[in-house]
Amino acid sequence: MSRVYNFSAGPAVLPEEVLKEAADEMLDYNGSGMSVMEMSHRSKEYDDIIKTAEKDLRDLMNIPDNYKVLFLQGGASQQFAMIPMNLMKNGVADYIVTGQWAKKAWQEASKYGKANKIASSEDKTFSYIPDCSDLPIDDNADYVYICENNTIYGTKFKELPNTKGKTLVADVSSCFLSEPVDVTKYGVIYGGVQKNIGPAGVVIVIIREDLITEDVMPGTPTMLQYKIHADADSLYNTPPAYGIYICGKVFKWLKKMGGLEKIKEINEKKAKILYDFLDESKLFKGTVEKKDRSLMNVPFVTGDADMDAKFVAEAKKAGFVNLKGHRSVGGMRASIYNAMPVEGVVALVDFMKKFEAENLK
Amino acid sequence: MSRVYNFSAGPAVLPEEVLKEAADEMLDYNGSGMSVMEMSHRSKEYDDIIKTAEKDLRDLMNIPDNYKVLFLQGGASQQFAMIPMNLMKNGVADYIVTGQWAKKAWQEASKYGKANKIASSEDKTFSYIPDCSDLPIDDNADYVYICENNTIYGTKFKELPNTKGKTLVADVSSCFLSEPVDVTKYGVIYGGVQKNIGPAGVVIVIIREDLITEDVMPGTPTMLQYKIHADADSLYNTPPAYGIYICGKVFKWLKKMGGLEKIKEINEKKAKILYDFLDESKLFKGTVEKKDRSLMNVPFVTGDADMDAKFVAEAKKAGFVNLKGHRSVGGMRASIYNAMPVEGVVALVDFMKKFEAENLK
Repeated sequence: MSRVYNFSAGPAVLPEEVLKEAADEMLDYNGSGMSVMEMSHRSKEYDDIIKTAEKDLRDLMNIPDNYKVLFLQGGASQQFAMIPMNLMKNGVADYIVTGQWAKKAWQEASKYGKANKIASSEDKTFSYIPDCSDLPIDDNADYVYICENNTIYGTKFKELPNTKGKTLVADVSSCFLSEPVDVTKYGVIYGGVQKNIGPAGVVIVIIREDLITEDVMPGTPTMLQYKIHADADSLYNTPPAYGIYICGKVFKWLKKMGGLEKIKEINEKKAKILYDFLDESKLFKGTVEKKDRSLMNVPFVTGDADMDAKFVAEAKKAGFVNLKGHRSVGGMRASIYNAMPVEGVVALVDFMKKFEAENLK
Repeated sequence: MSRVYNFSAGPAVLPEEVLKEAADEMLDYNGSGMSVMEMSHRSKEYDDIIKTAEKDLRDLMNIPDNYKVLFLQGGASQQFAMIPMNLMKNGVADYIVTGQWAKKAWQEASKYGKANKIASSEDKTFSYIPDCSDLPIDDNADYVYICENNTIYGTKFKELPNTKGKTLVADVSSCFLSEPVDVTKYGVIYGGVQKNIGPAGVVIVIIREDLITEDVMPGTPTMLQYKIHADADSLYNTPPAYGIYICGKVFKWLKKMGGLEKIKEINEKKAKILYDFLDESKLFKGTVEKKDRSLMNVPFVTGDADMDAKFVAEAKKAGFVNLKGHRSVGGMRASIYNAMPVEGVVALVDFMKKFEAENLK
């Protein structure tokens, strides 16, 4: 068996020791005589798995007691509808559009009420985060929405927007658990787990309790009501049980690594190695305004599409995979999530240096 | 490692060789150097996994070309809303209520239009299937809805209802792939996979193409539109990729076993062993009308709650787990899905005989 360095934007690399444990437990979890895949979600064993996962996540993020943690399905895309259907009491929300996913969220919300696009960076292919210190927040806005880290474009809000007292809702799919956050600054923090936590098919929603009400938009499907899932502790129906189990293992791994302060240090170290090289390289350059650079997703280009393709192909042969950039940015993108070891980034930069030396005329 | 005989109603037993393969491939799928959990859903490798899964399912069920196969999230519970939101063009549908899940589907549909309960077996704790040969089908009904196998109560439609030309929609969660079906008799066949196919978090929808339209109810979330998923071949957003991979392995296993004709034979054999014993036992008896007995879920009681509890406890000690019945029926329930080997049922009946000999005064 030979593992590659996997720079996929998601689904993405997972900690090797988590995968090893999962493999070891596949036929017999903890003496139960069955796989977690075969386990009733109402069983004592599974109850322990999901409760422990929630507790570990609460510990890691320091989630206050007045926030619920929900393990749901449908990905971030389903949250794009669920958020307005549950939270738009006045029928108004403000969206900051910093990429394709924020745009989709805004478009979906427009079906359910007045969704104002109060800022955007689409004018420059979403390569920066707009100034959000004094935006025209609607007096009636039920919430202000951001996508905190933009996977495709490689930008991140380094400072949260000034919502002027309105509830902040954030999609953190691609920066989930990459650094400490102050949960109290948000009404809702949510993300698909398939980038930085676990296998696709689980979305985690951390939501302040006062936002969970029965007063949802008429016609909201039962399964799209936060209250239904909150009241049932995410067991209203069968949850994506195996995915949650893997997430739980990743939470344990993060705790063992030293928690989010420590992970942030490592993530900053990894990102610095790559960005420092991009800043000095004569062949490669980053595509994002420096102040807004993501710690997780690092897009870069050579400026020559043929050279980009050559790089991606040679990198793949050398064991660095999924480096092709998103079609809307082109070039390359290295996603360096929590589970990407420092050695992976060092090895990538070494390879890039070698490629540069061979290819720079 | 010691595996138990797991009679869980779902999530439920999976073929041991499927789990072994999954464990073997956990760190390196097919020389890719990564787990399927870590794989981009847009990658060549994953495309092959999902396409092969679909093809094998089409082979197994002999699905005609004018039906789409969708791999979705949210379980059957989400389909309860998705079906009326997509199919109620006239705003009318007829529901046959043969258990808790059919009832929930009917209740959810009532939010979206006129959902007629045209038959029910609730008068006798859903212990039978009503006569559906000449029901008062609404002239304007967009579809007639059934839950084909009732997990909790252990009943199954042995004959499909006479829909008088209306589209039939069937929840087959607990009888999926348990025997051959004539797909052309249905407009929609769907089911959560966590009972008879794979891990929780995937729902498979087999839907006739003419039922897939843009003309959905106003306010239907994008993620709840069949057309969105059909047009994107289930890759509109990140699918529950690992779950689909396991389902694909189960499809391969079913083909190797000889397909659905053969599986039906085995399932009939297993069910006969258990039902024959129940019919002759002086201690245990089945709770369902004989003509409507499910091949998959077999509820039984002793008539004495203390004796039931004693049986469940002793069975567990002997390695027969998850035999406790659903609270609405009480007693016991043995779910004997495809992956439960004949030996498991034989061993259970042997244990029941022994228990009867020891406990019958």
